[in-house]
Amino acid sequence: MLENPLSEASKNKPEPSASHQLKASMNDARLFRNLMASLSSIIEEADFTATLDGIKLRAMDPSHIAMIDFEWARASFDQYQCPSPTRLRLSLSNLLKLLKRSRSDERLEIVYDDASKKLQVTLRNNLVRKFITSTLEPSTDQLPVPKIPFTVRVKLTAASLRDIIDDASTIGDNVRLEVTTDKFVVSASESLNSAIIEIDKASDAVLDFDVKQPAQSTYNLNYLAEMVRAGSGVSEVVSIEFANSAPIKVDFEMINQGRLAYYLADRKEPE
Amino acid sequence: MLENPLSEASKNKPEPSASHQLKASMNDARLFRNLMASLSSIIEEADFTATLDGIKLRAMDPSHIAMIDFEWARASFDQYQCPSPTRLRLSLSNLLKLLKRSRSDERLEIVYDDASKKLQVTLRNNLVRKFITSTLEPSTDQLPVPKIPFTVRVKLTAASLRDIIDDASTIGDNVRLEVTTDKFVVSASESLNSAIIEIDKASDAVLDFDVKQPAQSTYNLNYLAEMVRAGSGVSEVVSIEFANSAPIKVDFEMINQGRLAYYLADRKEPE
Amino acid sequence: MLENPLSEASKNKPEPSASHQLKASMNDARLFRNLMASLSSIIEEADFTATLDGIKLRAMDPSHIAMIDFEWARASFDQYQCPSPTRLRLSLSNLLKLLKRSRSDERLEIVYDDASKKLQVTLRNNLVRKFITSTLEPSTDQLPVPKIPFTVRVKLTAASLRDIIDDASTIGDNVRLEVTTDKFVVSASESLNSAIIEIDKASDAVLDFDVKQPAQSTYNLNYLAEMVRAGSGVSEVVSIEFANSAPIKVDFEMINQGRLAYYLADRKEPE
Repeated sequence: MLENPLSEASKNKPEPSASHQLKASMNDARLFRNLMASLSSIIEEADFTATLDGIKLRAMDPSHIAMIDFEWARASFDQYQCPSPTRLRLSLSNLLKLLKRSRSDERLEIVYDDASKKLQVTLRNNLVRKFITSTLEPSTDQLPVPKIPFTVRVKLTAASLRDIIDDASTIGDNVRLEVTTDKFVVSASESLNSAIIEIDKASDAVLDFDVKQPAQSTYNLNYLAEMVRAGSGVSEVVSIEFANSAPIKVDFEMINQGRLAYYLADRKEPE
Repeated sequence: MLENPLSEASKNKPEPSASHQLKASMNDARLFRNLMASLSSIIEEADFTATLDGIKLRAMDPSHIAMIDFEWARASFDQYQCPSPTRLRLSLSNLLKLLKRSRSDERLEIVYDDASKKLQVTLRNNLVRKFITSTLEPSTDQLPVPKIPFTVRVKLTAASLRDIIDDASTIGDNVRLEVTTDKFVVSASESLNSAIIEIDKASDAVLDFDVKQPAQSTYNLNYLAEMVRAGSGVSEVVSIEFANSAPIKVDFEMINQGRLAYYLADRKEPE
Repeated sequence: MLENPLSEASKNKPEPSASHQLKASMNDARLFRNLMASLSSIIEEADFTATLDGIKLRAMDPSHIAMIDFEWARASFDQYQCPSPTRLRLSLSNLLKLLKRSRSDERLEIVYDDASKKLQVTLRNNLVRKFITSTLEPSTDQLPVPKIPFTVRVKLTAASLRDIIDDASTIGDNVRLEVTTDKFVVSASESLNSAIIEIDKASDAVLDFDVKQPAQSTYNLNYLAEMVRAGSGVSEVVSIEFANSAPIKVDFEMINQGRLAYYLADRKEPE
């Protein structure tokens, strides 16, 4: 019952099948845990596609108002080996449970065997801890990335965006974002209170400020706060792009051609 | 809906009305938050009176066993302007919600407009965050400060008093305070346990010790603990004064003629 | 009601009875608190036996699958005085409540008076805090220590054992321990997941490794985790001993001939 299912599987199969394995490793196990947490802010079960180039995921949340576009490139791993493309579906809450005690100074190794459908996660510090978990049946949906004619783009530190959204979160369920020619304005309101946070384009928090046409749009504050909290755990720079009453793209800068971008539909404001 | 209600209000009114505004600012937003928290330990809605000299509040808790006497003098603000006396009533829990993320290195500005009845709270660090909240209908009660012939007075560090009361709080609902000619004794008891904490007048914790006539009296421990926790967040020195079976005054030393004093009725011990 | 029951008791009794008191003190009040917490991981009421040599306790948990063998020798106290053997029974949760705010830099003094059946616990820093608590009726059970022919013994750092057991605790209710000629293997499994943690005998975490005959056995993970958490709060080195499908002894090294050993029955695995 506690035998290593991977070694059993390989015993029962002819040698060449070993080449259908995905193997990858990285030095910061905590970063991997935070990446998985950034996905779990939107989805519960994750359909990963692994190819020669790296691991990808594109998925919508159950209510279809948010989307995540994630890529962790081959170059972001210390070692990466994926002889043939494969898909695997994981429960993120279960994976996060296994990674709960992972640390930044621990090495992480993952091995996925197509035949046994088991994922093995190994954490190495002075101890070697192996976790083996069953994967789920992958779905076959392929999602395109939405094409939105964004008219504004503000690049800022992830910590600042997190502060701004957390401030707005003390008030109300929705947040209105507005970008004028020289300011980024975030506002929220509820029965007794309203909040307005203004970020000048010259502020230290702003790294780039690009306005084709001023825009304002309203978004669900819970979703946005989840995205910003999750993304600021793995990235220090974020770009937001939107247009008048249009979805927003929240794009966290990742090392080595990685990608962590969220899309969130706008809320239609009552007339 | 998210427009600044203050600027709207001023647009609709003739210019001179702008002079009926209360404006004040201070460099430590967290201190202001802690002052408001020290009031909220006793009352939920606060009736402030603002005059040329500063901001005052005197109020009893709903069960009328505790009273707070608060004053934040003009000199305690960096800037203070109050052309004519005004009263404003605020929900403290709502105000604390807005100030939840305030920090010590942030500047706080408050503006109250008599016409719109709106309070604007601005927090400034590298960002500018404006919160606007509605005020409530002020009451017209004027409370006198109780005149009690105290016979003992002990001045000690607020941190020590907090430790003593927190220790007693592990046991029982009431606390008995006793001051003899050379000791301050705090005791509490419940079914299985009793606790006695003795502070010698020569202890480092004691800054001043004045006994006209030894006294002992019993107080509600929850109320006293709330007062001491709240006060020790804004002050480092506290004086307690009481007499035999009489109310206690817990007076926290404030800078610049400020005042934060609590009064608490004694508990009649069963004969 | 708040009078010191000990001083009352001594007033009402002839002088010589004072010699029936247990008196002990130590410089680290927090350590004493942690020792009591290590007992409370297994039992709720503790029957201590105090003799000239120190304080002892041997007790089983209510379900009789775990046992604790505790001794705090006379030499582990700064001062210790117990003119005649005595037994006292205490509610550990109540005692821990009194010690909740104890600190490592505080001196602890305990006095137990056979006549009044009261225990007085005094904590001294710049303040003197006395807690007086009633004791319970001691039981007269005398437990022998189980004689088990252990075949493996691994001595390792308490911190490592705690890490290992906490890792296993993320998965399943039981944990299988196995000691081979060169490895200590800890494994756990549940529906979706399994975990395997291997500790090589040459690992830094291992201080001693003694195998008469390789063994494996399964234990309740909650019990084991409680023991290891509690013990690693008062000790830095632990030895585990077990045999094939037999109870385990988890023995934490204590200074000055103290003893903190836990025994836990094995779980019979379904065939």
